Amino acid sequence: LAPGAILSDVGSVKGSVVAAVAPHLPEGVAFVPGHPVAGTEYSGPDAGFSTLFQNRWCILTPPEGTDEAPVARVRAFWEGLGAIVETMSPEHHDLVLAITSHVPHLIAYNIVGTAADLEEVTQSEVIKFSAGGFRDFTRIAASDPTMWRDVFLTNKDAVLEMLGRFNEDLAALARAIRWGDGEALHALFTRTRAIRRGIVAMGQETAEPDFGRRKEG
Amino acid sequence: LAPGAILSDVGSVKGSVVAAVAPHLPEGVAFVPGHPVAGTEYSGPDAGFSTLFQNRWCILTPPEGTDEAPVARVRAFWEGLGAIVETMSPEHHDLVLAITSHVPHLIAYNIVGTAADLEEVTQSEVIKFSAGGFRDFTRIAASDPTMWRDVFLTNKDAVLEMLGRFNEDLAALARAIRWGDGEALHALFTRTRAIRRGIVAMGQETAEPDFGRRKEG
Repeated sequence: LAPGAILSDVGSVKGSVVAAVAPHLPEGVAFVPGHPVAGTEYSGPDAGFSTLFQNRWCILTPPEGTDEAPVARVRAFWEGLGAIVETMSPEHHDLVLAITSHVPHLIAYNIVGTAADLEEVTQSEVIKFSAGGFRDFTRIAASDPTMWRDVFLTNKDAVLEMLGRFNEDLAALARAIRWGDGEALHALFTRTRAIRRGIVAMGQETAEPDFGRRKEG
Repeated sequence: LAPGAILSDVGSVKGSVVAAVAPHLPEGVAFVPGHPVAGTEYSGPDAGFSTLFQNRWCILTPPEGTDEAPVARVRAFWEGLGAIVETMSPEHHDLVLAITSHVPHLIAYNIVGTAADLEEVTQSEVIKFSAGGFRDFTRIAASDPTMWRDVFLTNKDAVLEMLGRFNEDLAALARAIRWGDGEALHALFTRTRAIRRGIVAMGQETAEPDFGRRKEG
């Protein structure tokens, strides 16, 4: 890497990458880590398609003190692919992604595993009746095992922190079910609709097959 | 209801319905509860479409001792709508649906609630970066609050049993992350892919917008 070069990446965890790479950067080389929040449960070049990044967010996390010029060049690259770019610190990125991506993946993997282990309900029944909601979890739980192992190991602190909050909330819900507190359940179930409306309003969801998920072969 | 009549329903929980209805059935009236495992996060007549039940499963749960003739008539009704019919006991139905539908809905509602309550991450960030996996949970968590409150209150035992197993498994996963046990993570993440393949192979998933989910307005 010659002086003036710009180094970037597309990984899902940023704090650990900055910590690992920054000490080894040659003089005059800028490091502008990036994370396009797009893609499907498929990996590799065959999983790409031309509109993959269109209207999807790409987060850049330049370490403190990075010059503006290399950040602008990496931003222009992603904007050229149709992405909308936002900049934040590596630490904040890892916290945001823990709740919007890492913990959702973890609980999807987890419930699919729980279902696979049941004795009272056969695997064939789980598969047949998956349209009741379970199916969406299996799509997420079909994501690349190696990549996701590494995500959880490198973003450990933020994932465990968010998982702790998830668990507290779930314990309260279980208690409401056990004691028949219908009002508490109804209140939460009504509140969560607002977030969904925000996602649809911001164009982050459509029914088009290739917008975030591809047809399976 | 005259003798010879057949009573049915389309609810998501069967044990409590059978317990409530059976004692009040007039002489000669058959009760054949049904549950079409189809539909979207929308409710009401406007949420229907002509292929809603095509190639989707419908579960019939006639109480013990129900005559064969009324069961065959309700089966023919659902098959006429394009559904594939399976028969099982009300108790087994409630256990199967707890893992394939009720617990997935509960944890989807829960994580969307957890995300909405964060102070370090804004609601706008959650919405923007939802494409990382969270978005699929918000679709489920936009389901009808009144119906889902009633599902959890009436299928309490099976839901709490399945949720207990889910929690045990999640605690083991959290421990693997904390102690850096990459092998345990990778093993689970590989195992869950088989269930996804089964769902795709059985035609319970396609990329068509109207197959289980509709375009949002």
